[in-house]
Amino acid sequence: MLVEGKPQRTIWLKPDDPGCVQIIDQRALPHAFVVEDLRSLDEAVHAISDMHVRGAPLIGATAAWGLYLAAIESEQGNNDIEYLKHAANRLKAARPTAVNLAWAVFRVMSRLGSENSSFSAIAKSEAEALVEEDVEICRMIGVHGLSLIETIATRSPDKPVNILTHCNAGWLATVDWGTATSPIYQAHALGIPIHVWVDETRPRNQGASLTAWELGEQGIAHTVIVDNAGGHLMQKGEVDLVIVGSDRTTRNGDVANKIGTYLKALAAKDNGVPFYVALPSPTIDWEITDGCQQIPIEERAAEEVTHIAGYLEHGEVAAVRLTPPTSRAANPAFDVTPARLVTGLITERGMCDASESGLTGLFPEQAKFVG
Amino acid sequence: MLVEGKPQRTIWLKPDDPGCVQIIDQRALPHAFVVEDLRSLDEAVHAISDMHVRGAPLIGATAAWGLYLAAIESEQGNNDIEYLKHAANRLKAARPTAVNLAWAVFRVMSRLGSENSSFSAIAKSEAEALVEEDVEICRMIGVHGLSLIETIATRSPDKPVNILTHCNAGWLATVDWGTATSPIYQAHALGIPIHVWVDETRPRNQGASLTAWELGEQGIAHTVIVDNAGGHLMQKGEVDLVIVGSDRTTRNGDVANKIGTYLKALAAKDNGVPFYVALPSPTIDWEITDGCQQIPIEERAAEEVTHIAGYLEHGEVAAVRLTPPTSRAANPAFDVTPARLVTGLITERGMCDASESGLTGLFPEQAKFVG
Repeated sequence: MLVEGKPQRTIWLKPDDPGCVQIIDQRALPHAFVVEDLRSLDEAVHAISDMHVRGAPLIGATAAWGLYLAAIESEQGNNDIEYLKHAANRLKAARPTAVNLAWAVFRVMSRLGSENSSFSAIAKSEAEALVEEDVEICRMIGVHGLSLIETIATRSPDKPVNILTHCNAGWLATVDWGTATSPIYQAHALGIPIHVWVDETRPRNQGASLTAWELGEQGIAHTVIVDNAGGHLMQKGEVDLVIVGSDRTTRNGDVANKIGTYLKALAAKDNGVPFYVALPSPTIDWEITDGCQQIPIEERAAEEVTHIAGYLEHGEVAAVRLTPPTSRAANPAFDVTPARLVTGLITERGMCDASESGLTGLFPEQAKFVG
Repeated sequence: MLVEGKPQRTIWLKPDDPGCVQIIDQRALPHAFVVEDLRSLDEAVHAISDMHVRGAPLIGATAAWGLYLAAIESEQGNNDIEYLKHAANRLKAARPTAVNLAWAVFRVMSRLGSENSSFSAIAKSEAEALVEEDVEICRMIGVHGLSLIETIATRSPDKPVNILTHCNAGWLATVDWGTATSPIYQAHALGIPIHVWVDETRPRNQGASLTAWELGEQGIAHTVIVDNAGGHLMQKGEVDLVIVGSDRTTRNGDVANKIGTYLKALAAKDNGVPFYVALPSPTIDWEITDGCQQIPIEERAAEEVTHIAGYLEHGEVAAVRLTPPTSRAANPAFDVTPARLVTGLITERGMCDASESGLTGLFPEQAKFVG
């Protein structure tokens, strides 16, 4: 998507420097656009765990490129597949909730043993393929989800379509297009008037920092709200549609996403507002059917709650403490929205009910896993 | 309640200085305990509208004392009742959602015309009476709500009772005891182990700043969480009981309270967690029956969302910007929780269903207003 009017992706191999993968250090947004070089497995693992990159699709892509960096390291040493297995485990453990990490690592690793090229050449080829697939998957989510927005716009042609989203499931969470934002970008390109309610998404404020910024860069009207406000706006008829992303979706349609998503789904249900989840199929965990019981929820540092960083009047970044020094804080990073609260899923193959039959209808090759 | 181990109220007449009402400037908490002098109607209005004091009961008490300050001003001028009527209107307009402002002003004003003392003597007497009543009302809310906590403690004697609260309905929102916190303080005094989940309560963070601080000062275990986290904690069985306050309650039991309360009520209902609202009867608006349609919801400044203040490492206060400079923000300050989501109301006369029959059962003198 656009940054200052120019097309941009979130991860790429540095031109003329094959030992360097480049990312946007998203911690600096919205105040600065910082490109970061990753030159080692360590740096790739750290970029994921410390959330320089985030979003299930993008951490998958970063893991694939991380294996490429590990393969270069291996080739500079004893060219040992054991080192790559170790690298794979480190990348998979960098964050626990999204299933894309394991999926991306599996894709690269399963080619490494079976082909007659260097580890790094294979990893590069697979990382590039995976990244291009992600772009196409996200574009197709937009193509399929567009009809939801078109229907509302046709019904109420005299006002913009009001869409609420939580966290950042935008292009910054993927390689390009985003998931929840992809239908929005497609509709905007067609000239459909849109206004987005952006949940700030405490504690890390990915909505206020990232979604607001990327919508602004595309010229899309939006308003930042605190996470508490969405229910009230739905009661007042100010929300036509909710679209969120997903970090992991079970085969029956339970959705793990950023903490607070569940509360918005409850409010949408209570007010008859359609609640859609946009998800690339690599975020589906076909092996589990009970999101609340089976999806591990990452517990992150208390400091993300007790402190917040922003920009002082004169432009420097500063972190301020919000709580009494003696007060503890807890910080679960995701929650699970049960399928019963989800109006529908938007995937690269089309839309479906949030159910096993819905998902296996679109992905019949997965029906064989039914227990 | 206690501050550094010493009993403290939130508003009082300055000893040996009858022209001065003192309050705690709550904007400085939790980092500093600042006492502020109010010496004029203007200062009282400003203290309410700018949230030096907040919480429905306390803004009622501040309005009563504000009329006392206005009465002194009137006596120093032409002793004109018109000035007091003007003062009454300014105080009532200082904030729109809580009904206590109008109630407190009405109480003082209705005595002014009918008694043969000076305006200031009457206003002082009524403000003092109102404040003492508020203390007793809040104490009785605790006496009645205590049984909810005792029942849970008896059922699960091996672990603390986990109570979630939103915003600050603590003693800082009243004159003493608080509303939602009063049962907690009563239970703590009896030695019942309690742990409180404190919603930080964006945008103004009254939970993280005030509730966490006052619980800490009373020695009660608590953990601050972002507003997004409560639903997840309820799904995981980590919340035994929710108690919140109310800024205005309709005669049928709809509850206006700090923005985000509605989302917690939905989550409590979805998880079978009891959801109670603690309310002094002056917060009941007996004249309305549809909270969502009839309660005016204050829209506050966007800067409360786009910026947040906290403490830098070295102790100074600083405000930091959280959003892109070009992004708009909206800031509705309250929402309405429909009575159907409320397990029960805790008043100074006892507990009841969130319904007209429940409330008029406890307050039969109000039954005559039934439409």
